[in-house]
Amino acid sequence: MEANTQNLAHQAPFPSDRWWVAGFGWELKDQPLARTLLDVPLVLFRTPDGQVAALEDRCCHKELPLSLGAIEPRGLRCGYHGLLFDCQGTCVEIPGQEAIPAKARVRSYELRERDQVLWLWHGSTPDSRPDSEPPAYPFHTDPAFRFGGDMVHYDAPYQLVHDNLLDLSHLGYVHVHTIGGNPGLHMNAQMKVTQDGEVVKVVRHMPGSEAPPTYAQAWPFRGRIDRWQEIEFHLSHLRIWTGAVDEGDAPLDDPQRGGFHMRGFHGVTPETHASCHYFWTISTNPKSNVEEVTRIVVDQTARTFLEDKEIVESQWRNQQRFGFRPQMDIHVDAGPNRARRVIRQLVG
Amino acid sequence: MEANTQNLAHQAPFPSDRWWVAGFGWELKDQPLARTLLDVPLVLFRTPDGQVAALEDRCCHKELPLSLGAIEPRGLRCGYHGLLFDCQGTCVEIPGQEAIPAKARVRSYELRERDQVLWLWHGSTPDSRPDSEPPAYPFHTDPAFRFGGDMVHYDAPYQLVHDNLLDLSHLGYVHVHTIGGNPGLHMNAQMKVTQDGEVVKVVRHMPGSEAPPTYAQAWPFRGRIDRWQEIEFHLSHLRIWTGAVDEGDAPLDDPQRGGFHMRGFHGVTPETHASCHYFWTISTNPKSNVEEVTRIVVDQTARTFLEDKEIVESQWRNQQRFGFRPQMDIHVDAGPNRARRVIRQLVG
Amino acid sequence: MEANTQNLAHQAPFPSDRWWVAGFGWELKDQPLARTLLDVPLVLFRTPDGQVAALEDRCCHKELPLSLGAIEPRGLRCGYHGLLFDCQGTCVEIPGQEAIPAKARVRSYELRERDQVLWLWHGSTPDSRPDSEPPAYPFHTDPAFRFGGDMVHYDAPYQLVHDNLLDLSHLGYVHVHTIGGNPGLHMNAQMKVTQDGEVVKVVRHMPGSEAPPTYAQAWPFRGRIDRWQEIEFHLSHLRIWTGAVDEGDAPLDDPQRGGFHMRGFHGVTPETHASCHYFWTISTNPKSNVEEVTRIVVDQTARTFLEDKEIVESQWRNQQRFGFRPQMDIHVDAGPNRARRVIRQLVG
Repeated sequence: MEANTQNLAHQAPFPSDRWWVAGFGWELKDQPLARTLLDVPLVLFRTPDGQVAALEDRCCHKELPLSLGAIEPRGLRCGYHGLLFDCQGTCVEIPGQEAIPAKARVRSYELRERDQVLWLWHGSTPDSRPDSEPPAYPFHTDPAFRFGGDMVHYDAPYQLVHDNLLDLSHLGYVHVHTIGGNPGLHMNAQMKVTQDGEVVKVVRHMPGSEAPPTYAQAWPFRGRIDRWQEIEFHLSHLRIWTGAVDEGDAPLDDPQRGGFHMRGFHGVTPETHASCHYFWTISTNPKSNVEEVTRIVVDQTARTFLEDKEIVESQWRNQQRFGFRPQMDIHVDAGPNRARRVIRQLVG
Repeated sequence: MEANTQNLAHQAPFPSDRWWVAGFGWELKDQPLARTLLDVPLVLFRTPDGQVAALEDRCCHKELPLSLGAIEPRGLRCGYHGLLFDCQGTCVEIPGQEAIPAKARVRSYELRERDQVLWLWHGSTPDSRPDSEPPAYPFHTDPAFRFGGDMVHYDAPYQLVHDNLLDLSHLGYVHVHTIGGNPGLHMNAQMKVTQDGEVVKVVRHMPGSEAPPTYAQAWPFRGRIDRWQEIEFHLSHLRIWTGAVDEGDAPLDDPQRGGFHMRGFHGVTPETHASCHYFWTISTNPKSNVEEVTRIVVDQTARTFLEDKEIVESQWRNQQRFGFRPQMDIHVDAGPNRARRVIRQLVG
Repeated sequence: MEANTQNLAHQAPFPSDRWWVAGFGWELKDQPLARTLLDVPLVLFRTPDGQVAALEDRCCHKELPLSLGAIEPRGLRCGYHGLLFDCQGTCVEIPGQEAIPAKARVRSYELRERDQVLWLWHGSTPDSRPDSEPPAYPFHTDPAFRFGGDMVHYDAPYQLVHDNLLDLSHLGYVHVHTIGGNPGLHMNAQMKVTQDGEVVKVVRHMPGSEAPPTYAQAWPFRGRIDRWQEIEFHLSHLRIWTGAVDEGDAPLDDPQRGGFHMRGFHGVTPETHASCHYFWTISTNPKSNVEEVTRIVVDQTARTFLEDKEIVESQWRNQQRFGFRPQMDIHVDAGPNRARRVIRQLVG
């Protein structure tokens, strides 16, 4: 049992020198995108030749957000007096002025695109450079899977979203209309929490479960089902593998198990200490009616996440309203608490 | 002449160890109700067997407002992980966990229902228990009267609503379209202010008055009327008896006088130091067309109170904007000032 | 190159003992008008006999804004209890009370109307009285010109609006759909900045320019045009004379030059340290289709100023968001910086 340490008066920094999710590749089209990540207001954009870039969202002249400007082949042009910045933040043109001062530049950040995910390097110092490639996410390119996704903005600290994702026992109360199921089964499911370095795993098996609405619509189950939920917490994102087979059809921990799969990618990136962006995709393996089943799974997942948003934002407002009083832990908090410990040790 | 003592920087507590109005019985149906009273965020609810209860609106586990939960026969179940609390705030079930820790509880408050009014005991300490029954209000059950009412939320401190109700001279300026009348008559009416313990009475007689619109629509007056306004300030609520007889028909202070009666119940309860709830009913004695006259009286009263809300909230915004400068009293402030003194002495 | 000195934590007062624009004469009809000017919440009104007046917007009794009251021949009557104040702020009637205390008064301010502009005297002390007539503005009465105008509220400090008006090089980026034109020409235009006491002048000539949309719609130009922009900064308002002749038709600095004229009056008055009112008119000299051309010029000017509002408010939000970091000047900032220096010396 631990006290809630989220009191904003004692803010820890965000874990640094690592990749965080900045968005999805499809978000960068012909207009620049304003997005604050890890307390830094950024403009993200893609040049006509396909390169992605991230700059501080502030012209060094009169401070207009560069996200109000226009993309050009050489970079981004400010919408007030036309200063042009390249992808490294260097001013390469001041209209009407020959000399460009050395300080005519804005800060740039490493932005990479991999498997349709945009990754931002968050350095502990301005000189910090990536020491690795950003993580791969193969299900965005696996032909056996279809996926869809979206972004949800949370007026709540990012760790409350971690808590929510690492403890799926709430499905029986919050998500009864989509991916829920019988509450008792959820709360009584065997739960195994393990840790490997910074990675926390929570595995829950729910044999003999009723098929919740989304499952029943997406897969031709015969009757009762054996469900699994495997949550893998990485600091920058969670991978949540859920699914089910017909009751008794396969061992639940068989890596080759068939059945219905929903594989979720969940990038949770702080916007500020009291708000965050939640970038999610859900991949599934439709047996037939591929388009329709994919649509059902994606739409109902989207609906489910709006239910979570309502709960978590209400929770956060209430924590503030009651002055961050201590909370009381129960059995389902083992996973979330492990993840919080990982972060606490990193930002010490 | 006294300076305005409402500066929020010097907040007095609210008078305690007494009953305050928490709402009306008909507000508690099959959903829990979130309401902050006297700076305490509460959830009010009625169990299927009719019992009313008030708990702190915060689950002791993850702090979700309990008002987002569901009513069950045994109490209120949290909408996040399903903890169930009884009407005394004791957790009686933690789904999936056998042992229920002793600290699994939320604070409960005494809530009573009498004559369709909900009363909350506001104790000076957690151990404070009611020393009396809450007040009766017979006109909600008197067969000679019909009534209707509603709740108005004020973004203004509760004492500004007291001021407004204890000085009805504003009727001639603020409420000309309903219960107003000729301004000169209002401002020049004889006014008698008396006090008996914590109860302040303001009585005004306005013989030979024009019948204001609401009066003319509700009662078959022949012409000019003799009006009375009797205001009884109790700390938790005001009782305002107004009405009129045809000019010269009866002595205005005759307890047996006939004519048209509007009997108002006005529960004014702080939400915070800068906002309050105003719970009102108006009871009347229609001579004929019972339903229609009742509707006219209730609807026009509702309209009148929205006019008051606009005035009082503007007044409050202006007091803040001008930094709580001293005010200048005039003759009509005798009643309001007496009531302020009662409260000042209680919270001294 | 100078650091941004707008940090709200170090606010300078506003230049005082001078006239500021309070609005336009046509705004004062039969209802009082609430307007905060130079941090003072005021009510402006016109009595039935045509006199204009400005009072503190707070009744000295219960602090209701007087702007919620009603205009009468003798002055303004409060909407709560009917106190009547004359144009000097003296209470001349307390309904129902014979004696009017000496302190029954509200502060009054000098308000004058000249050429349809309302001018407010902002004194350094309560005793400060005007030492001059407010400025004339002849184009509001010149029969050769037609004009229209409006008020724009800015959620940004007034000096950011000065910056915007004193540097018209932004026309090529911000106003391409109305009064803009080719950006290169704007940024490379010769610019002459001069100063005479508190008055700063910026003159730019752009020979051989393309006629921007508004010009082409308002005047029968044959082809390319010679444009001028003459900006005269007075602390209380700017006068911006812009226009054009057919290329080569007249010397651009000839006071008798013909062609198309747009003469702008731009009163910029602080509301608070972080917001301001922008009162503008545009006068033009239509060659034919007088009504239609006037409408085009006024409507497109209005549209242009909404584009400026969006830019300047975004700029201000960004300056706050980035904590008022130093800015980098470029060539076009000479005029704005001169005006800032004038104000800095006055409020030093």
